[in-house]
Amino acid sequence: MSTNKGGGGGKKKKEVKKETKLGMGYKKDDNFGEWYSEVVVNSEMIEYYDISGCYILRPWAMEIWELLKEFFDSEIKKLKLKPYYFPLFVTENVLQKEKDHIEGFAPEVAWVTKSGKSDLEAPIAIRPTSETVMYPYFSKWIRSHRDLPLKCNQWCNVVRWEFSNPTPFIRSREFLWQEGHTVFATKEEADEEVLQILELYRRIYEEFLAVPVSKGRKSEMEKFAGGLYTTSVEIGVMIMTHGDDKGLVLPPKVAPIQVIVIPVPFKDADTTAIKGACESAVYTLNQAGIRADLDARENYSPGWKYSQWEMKGVPLRIEIGPKDLANKQVRIVRRDNGTKVDIPSTDLVEQVRVLLDGIQVNLLETAKAKRDACIEIISTWDEFIAALNNKKLILAPWCDEEEVEKDVKARTKGELGAAKTLCTPFDQPDLPSGTVCFASGKPAQKWSFWGRSY
Amino acid sequence: MSTNKGGGGGKKKKEVKKETKLGMGYKKDDNFGEWYSEVVVNSEMIEYYDISGCYILRPWAMEIWELLKEFFDSEIKKLKLKPYYFPLFVTENVLQKEKDHIEGFAPEVAWVTKSGKSDLEAPIAIRPTSETVMYPYFSKWIRSHRDLPLKCNQWCNVVRWEFSNPTPFIRSREFLWQEGHTVFATKEEADEEVLQILELYRRIYEEFLAVPVSKGRKSEMEKFAGGLYTTSVEIGVMIMTHGDDKGLVLPPKVAPIQVIVIPVPFKDADTTAIKGACESAVYTLNQAGIRADLDARENYSPGWKYSQWEMKGVPLRIEIGPKDLANKQVRIVRRDNGTKVDIPSTDLVEQVRVLLDGIQVNLLETAKAKRDACIEIISTWDEFIAALNNKKLILAPWCDEEEVEKDVKARTKGELGAAKTLCTPFDQPDLPSGTVCFASGKPAQKWSFWGRSY
Repeated sequence: MSTNKGGGGGKKKKEVKKETKLGMGYKKDDNFGEWYSEVVVNSEMIEYYDISGCYILRPWAMEIWELLKEFFDSEIKKLKLKPYYFPLFVTENVLQKEKDHIEGFAPEVAWVTKSGKSDLEAPIAIRPTSETVMYPYFSKWIRSHRDLPLKCNQWCNVVRWEFSNPTPFIRSREFLWQEGHTVFATKEEADEEVLQILELYRRIYEEFLAVPVSKGRKSEMEKFAGGLYTTSVEIGVMIMTHGDDKGLVLPPKVAPIQVIVIPVPFKDADTTAIKGACESAVYTLNQAGIRADLDARENYSPGWKYSQWEMKGVPLRIEIGPKDLANKQVRIVRRDNGTKVDIPSTDLVEQVRVLLDGIQVNLLETAKAKRDACIEIISTWDEFIAALNNKKLILAPWCDEEEVEKDVKARTKGELGAAKTLCTPFDQPDLPSGTVCFASGKPAQKWSFWGRSY
Repeated sequence: MSTNKGGGGGKKKKEVKKETKLGMGYKKDDNFGEWYSEVVVNSEMIEYYDISGCYILRPWAMEIWELLKEFFDSEIKKLKLKPYYFPLFVTENVLQKEKDHIEGFAPEVAWVTKSGKSDLEAPIAIRPTSETVMYPYFSKWIRSHRDLPLKCNQWCNVVRWEFSNPTPFIRSREFLWQEGHTVFATKEEADEEVLQILELYRRIYEEFLAVPVSKGRKSEMEKFAGGLYTTSVEIGVMIMTHGDDKGLVLPPKVAPIQVIVIPVPFKDADTTAIKGACESAVYTLNQAGIRADLDARENYSPGWKYSQWEMKGVPLRIEIGPKDLANKQVRIVRRDNGTKVDIPSTDLVEQVRVLLDGIQVNLLETAKAKRDACIEIISTWDEFIAALNNKKLILAPWCDEEEVEKDVKARTKGELGAAKTLCTPFDQPDLPSGTVCFASGKPAQKWSFWGRSY
């Protein structure tokens, strides 16, 4: 079922909060799912749409997307990838050519069968991904080794009509992405590029979104048909990792507004002078290349504004009131840990830079610590089951045999989802000779990450 | 009918030319339609696709699009438009709400009726434009005048399943565009913004694509339902205007490569030194912010390379051979008029800048002269008919009555297409009192442009 008139995209729709009652209705630790739905809506990243699994991306989400896109696009252009745009549509005939590849997508393909009131002669698919759209033309364009390498990238929308639990940024029926497709004369060149691109994805996660990742290789069973690695940029992970009970927490490098400046007038105070000081602060920060903005709205109280910008995850808030004006200072409040400092106006740019850098580092370090606390290194089947039940990310010595992986999956099927390999990290702990596989007892070949499917 | 397996998108497909026979098979003046199809393919802007009316945009087209997009997006951000992304899909119910608006699009709407093997409960349309997708949410977000203005822009793909003569860039079933939608508290603010945006479109045409335009207002009969103006950026016009029998001619401001540098080795010449001089020229130009590239391919002759880069419309070609090396000079050849100059290597950047600016101006001036030669100012019905038969762009005194416009349309219906108003230019020639309408004999209210529908 797909259409849901006037509803909240399959989600129970909550009452729109009154302006005086801005804030979160759910706590992250109490009800993670509802907290997530609330934070993406209240921070104005997402508006639910009247087709389930489709979402409106509002400026607060799009500006983050644009910042990531700008970085990534300029980096892949340095690697000589060229921009292309292939059509949204693909004929059934072409789509079916790559049998193995398309098998996984078939149940999710959306089909156009009519234009206006007329039936099309043959149904036409909307791309779930573009391999089948592109590769027939690659073989046309590449007539000899002289035409290599061919390096193609496109930014586009794709459609996968999924039925399980749509969630903004995590699982939606239409989404925006980047797909790079390259052809080389030798496997060595291709291998090299895979690692270059994987490193860019790592930087997106760690340097921009402040989310730690492990680079690694998928098992034969879990890999994308024909591919070595499968990586994806899920902004939802960033929200889940850093967000708290006040709403979103944005890493400074992806925050559309890094510093929000709020005037704090008080009774007889000189409101004109306060507003002037605020404008001057914004101007000074902007000149220094810092994304700062002024919230001069007169129909909202300072306290209400604090809540709203906390909800939207802006890394730093600057408050300027009569006392600050008199002391030629500003008060700066950090979103990530709530600490407040008063700093002289003359040091504004320097101090803001230090604070923003500090927040970026702190978010990544905190997320790393959380992630590390979730990892459990095990060596036996019993330890494995215990860790799985505790929802741990499991690092285990493994014999690297597909039969064993299938067997583990079969033996763990149950309420929480079967266990599967996530990846074999490039960064391998020591594996003393004589170490055995936790599942088969055969000699272990490598350490691999295991977790629940979901 | 929509699917056209292995064919050339409804066009007769020409033999792929052998590498030694690069060049154009048609002349612009002899067979404009075939010339156009050939130039968009041979310049590597477009590849025909196996669904009629859909085209693959290759880097040579996408890089132009990116240059235009970069300019336009930064300008509208100065006007405080914010980036949004609304879904590709719209329910039948919502689509039908704006009856008048959607009537024109209805026959061209593509409908998704299936996902995988299952029928959807209700068909879902693919956006032909996003008014109906967006406006229900605008009314949700705007709860009082305090939420105004709302300024929304999105870059996206839209689909119009047209059946008449698909042509790359001019009429395609899927195309990329920008759509800005803004809401203001007063008509004055909206009026002001319309003119600001119209000015940006003018700059895209004149400053970037070197295509002269007339700013003006559509008649009541021809206007977009609910709109004051309809403007569109059609890169096809740029190709048609400047292209010649050697292929594409790109204005420097939109050329992905502005200068192509080609080594011209000769028998016993020092090929290493020549290649070194070429690399140095490219490096120097790039450092100065000029988009220059080296064609060092060894399996093609210089002559073949000249033809290929002329086909692709690169504004300047630099040739460096033994004589140039000895004289510390380079030879520069202009694409627009073929003139050649030898300039000292020390003046390279300065001279290239002057030449690129000169080409940009020359293309616009030439196009203006051609356009002006096409305009005919008329005052009587007989003159109107004669000018129409000569395919002129007609500037005529008009009473500005819808009935008269309908009447003119009816009286001119025929093989070449009925006459219609194009726009009333803001820049109005003198209209002496007593001037009468060319069609009705009533007092004329204004000068308007008329032409054939096509």
